[in-house]
Amino acid sequence: MDSIYRTRMRRFRQWMVDEKIDASFIMMSSDLQYLTGIRRQPHNPTDDDKHADELYGAFISPEGGPLFVVPRMGASSYVRKQAEDKPWIEDIEVVDDGDRLCPVAEDLLDRFGSPRRLGVSGRAWARTLLLFQRVSDEIQFTDASQKIAAMRAVKDANELCVMREAGEMTDRVFAAVLKRLRLGMTEYDIAREVDHQMIICGATGASFHTGITVTGDDIPRRDTQHRNGDTALQPGAVIAFDFGLIWKGYVSDFGRTVFCGEPDEEFKRYHDVVMRAQAEAIEAMESGQITAAGLNRVARSVIEGDGLGQYFTHRLGHGIGIDVHEPPFLYQLDETTLQSGMCFTVEPSIRIPGRVAVRVEDVVQVTDSGGVPLSNFSRDYLVI
Amino acid sequence: MDSIYRTRMRRFRQWMVDEKIDASFIMMSSDLQYLTGIRRQPHNPTDDDKHADELYGAFISPEGGPLFVVPRMGASSYVRKQAEDKPWIEDIEVVDDGDRLCPVAEDLLDRFGSPRRLGVSGRAWARTLLLFQRVSDEIQFTDASQKIAAMRAVKDANELCVMREAGEMTDRVFAAVLKRLRLGMTEYDIAREVDHQMIICGATGASFHTGITVTGDDIPRRDTQHRNGDTALQPGAVIAFDFGLIWKGYVSDFGRTVFCGEPDEEFKRYHDVVMRAQAEAIEAMESGQITAAGLNRVARSVIEGDGLGQYFTHRLGHGIGIDVHEPPFLYQLDETTLQSGMCFTVEPSIRIPGRVAVRVEDVVQVTDSGGVPLSNFSRDYLVI
Repeated sequence: MDSIYRTRMRRFRQWMVDEKIDASFIMMSSDLQYLTGIRRQPHNPTDDDKHADELYGAFISPEGGPLFVVPRMGASSYVRKQAEDKPWIEDIEVVDDGDRLCPVAEDLLDRFGSPRRLGVSGRAWARTLLLFQRVSDEIQFTDASQKIAAMRAVKDANELCVMREAGEMTDRVFAAVLKRLRLGMTEYDIAREVDHQMIICGATGASFHTGITVTGDDIPRRDTQHRNGDTALQPGAVIAFDFGLIWKGYVSDFGRTVFCGEPDEEFKRYHDVVMRAQAEAIEAMESGQITAAGLNRVARSVIEGDGLGQYFTHRLGHGIGIDVHEPPFLYQLDETTLQSGMCFTVEPSIRIPGRVAVRVEDVVQVTDSGGVPLSNFSRDYLVI
Repeated sequence: MDSIYRTRMRRFRQWMVDEKIDASFIMMSSDLQYLTGIRRQPHNPTDDDKHADELYGAFISPEGGPLFVVPRMGASSYVRKQAEDKPWIEDIEVVDDGDRLCPVAEDLLDRFGSPRRLGVSGRAWARTLLLFQRVSDEIQFTDASQKIAAMRAVKDANELCVMREAGEMTDRVFAAVLKRLRLGMTEYDIAREVDHQMIICGATGASFHTGITVTGDDIPRRDTQHRNGDTALQPGAVIAFDFGLIWKGYVSDFGRTVFCGEPDEEFKRYHDVVMRAQAEAIEAMESGQITAAGLNRVARSVIEGDGLGQYFTHRLGHGIGIDVHEPPFLYQLDETTLQSGMCFTVEPSIRIPGRVAVRVEDVVQVTDSGGVPLSNFSRDYLVI
């Protein structure tokens, strides 16, 4: 594993040299995991500030680093332990609760030659940048995440292997949940079962809040503060699944639609259109042959061809890897050409408010001969 | 409710006038909820980028706004619906998937008189600031969250009422979980039960990842990737609880220690020291009489007085309200004087690695006559 991270950092350093960037500060994030192998903790639902959180990350320069900066409280043992088998981590600087941040930042920037041009994570905090500016008012910032995103977009063999495992686990989670569906279960009950089956499967947890939507003619929906509410399964219900898991630092994202009882012809038609849109898009995912925007058009034109365009209200999908949504994005502004090793969700849908939500979603790997789905649960319409 | 938000915005606007700040951009965040009543969605465990996410927030100036900027996908209906009963929301600008961000940002800044000095959330993204700088290279940023944090620190009567409800709900959740504890349950099983009881109680969900730690002499701990692992309850185990919920946009944070079987004298002593440290701190939380740093010392000196200082490894607590951790913080660098209406967690602990973790935690409101806990479950040592 050693060489993967050294190679990534070498490419990132070359970018800094090319762009005349003196050093970069990458916050504890998916970017930093990608470059160094040190994983962030999953985000909490609400913010949890700790002392020195705005400096929690690593400096890396064309010649030096990565130097990790880590708040002692809650984070230092977490990072130290991960660093044990990673000799490419140059050093770990622990910030104590009693340390004032301005001198700490000054010292850190000084160790990297007082950079004039500093690369920063796209999601670094304003507070981080303002701290660096207090140390030096001449410092200029560049979004380093754009470079790292381009690197992250094309997965290597090891990453693809982990993502395939994540896809297979996701299939197993869905199969286990399907067996446990019963009339009367609410959206919340189903979501809780999904989350539980992920853990049983060995996943770290959900990559995003599991979304279960129960719709159907004559099914009243209560307005709750929860995404997964109290709407219960009854004959004629349509269940839309949207969930994913975290496995070895990579994620999945998956969707299927399940009918409670044989669907009527209209629902079958919606289901068929959505599946055709997905199938045509997957087939078109040939390396070098199509752009992200072009792929979005492929699926959209299928649904529009059936006169249902206004019910497909979102982009076709998104890049996926360490994060559940990462560039490139399958929408009209993204002209990235698809390349072997890129992974995208392909998730067309038809939603008619108050009536039906039909969706499908798989993570699909781009290859020289078209897309290869990493999850493979049946795409026939599913009836319980 | 109307007047609360108008009052808060008036105070924030006065700060802008005083500081010669032309306008502020506050990201969709707890700060924005505080100022306008529009709630953010809870964070997902991994990042979920959408088009225009770096502009998802609101502009507010001494005379204008709040003007919300909202990505159409996934966010516009969420914000629109919340804005329906909030006439103080001036306008909502929806950014379509096809809109390029630089012209959008230029137009927005233009509508606010092309501000030279712009207040920004402390956790606004670097990418947001870089976008604004592309529009105008003369723009200067100020951390507006510091002002909002000072306002947020002192809760008004309505906020205290909601936080008290959150505390009472938390007591009920804990009582329900206690009844369900059985030998053989793992940390994961217990955490899952806690999360479930929160929902049954009506909470939006957990405010942070529920933490259950089972320790005790001769209890082997498996090294897992999960915070809540497979360590199971057995006679002699000590269970440390750390959890909180979200209720009406405010949060709780709570801790107790439970013994499986009557604890020995040594464990009882640890428990007693932790409770004394908390009790003395709560008593000292008198408005105007002590600083955050001073309060930290009060509790620490109790534990140090018993020769156990090295096992109390963290700050005494943190401000809490819309976020689980928010300023002020009960640690040596924070010289804020406690005022009536501030709320803090008071959470001393003793952790002897591989042996025992004893903790207690309550949210405590500062009053003129000392601290008043918002959760009131028994602080005696609990035995199952």
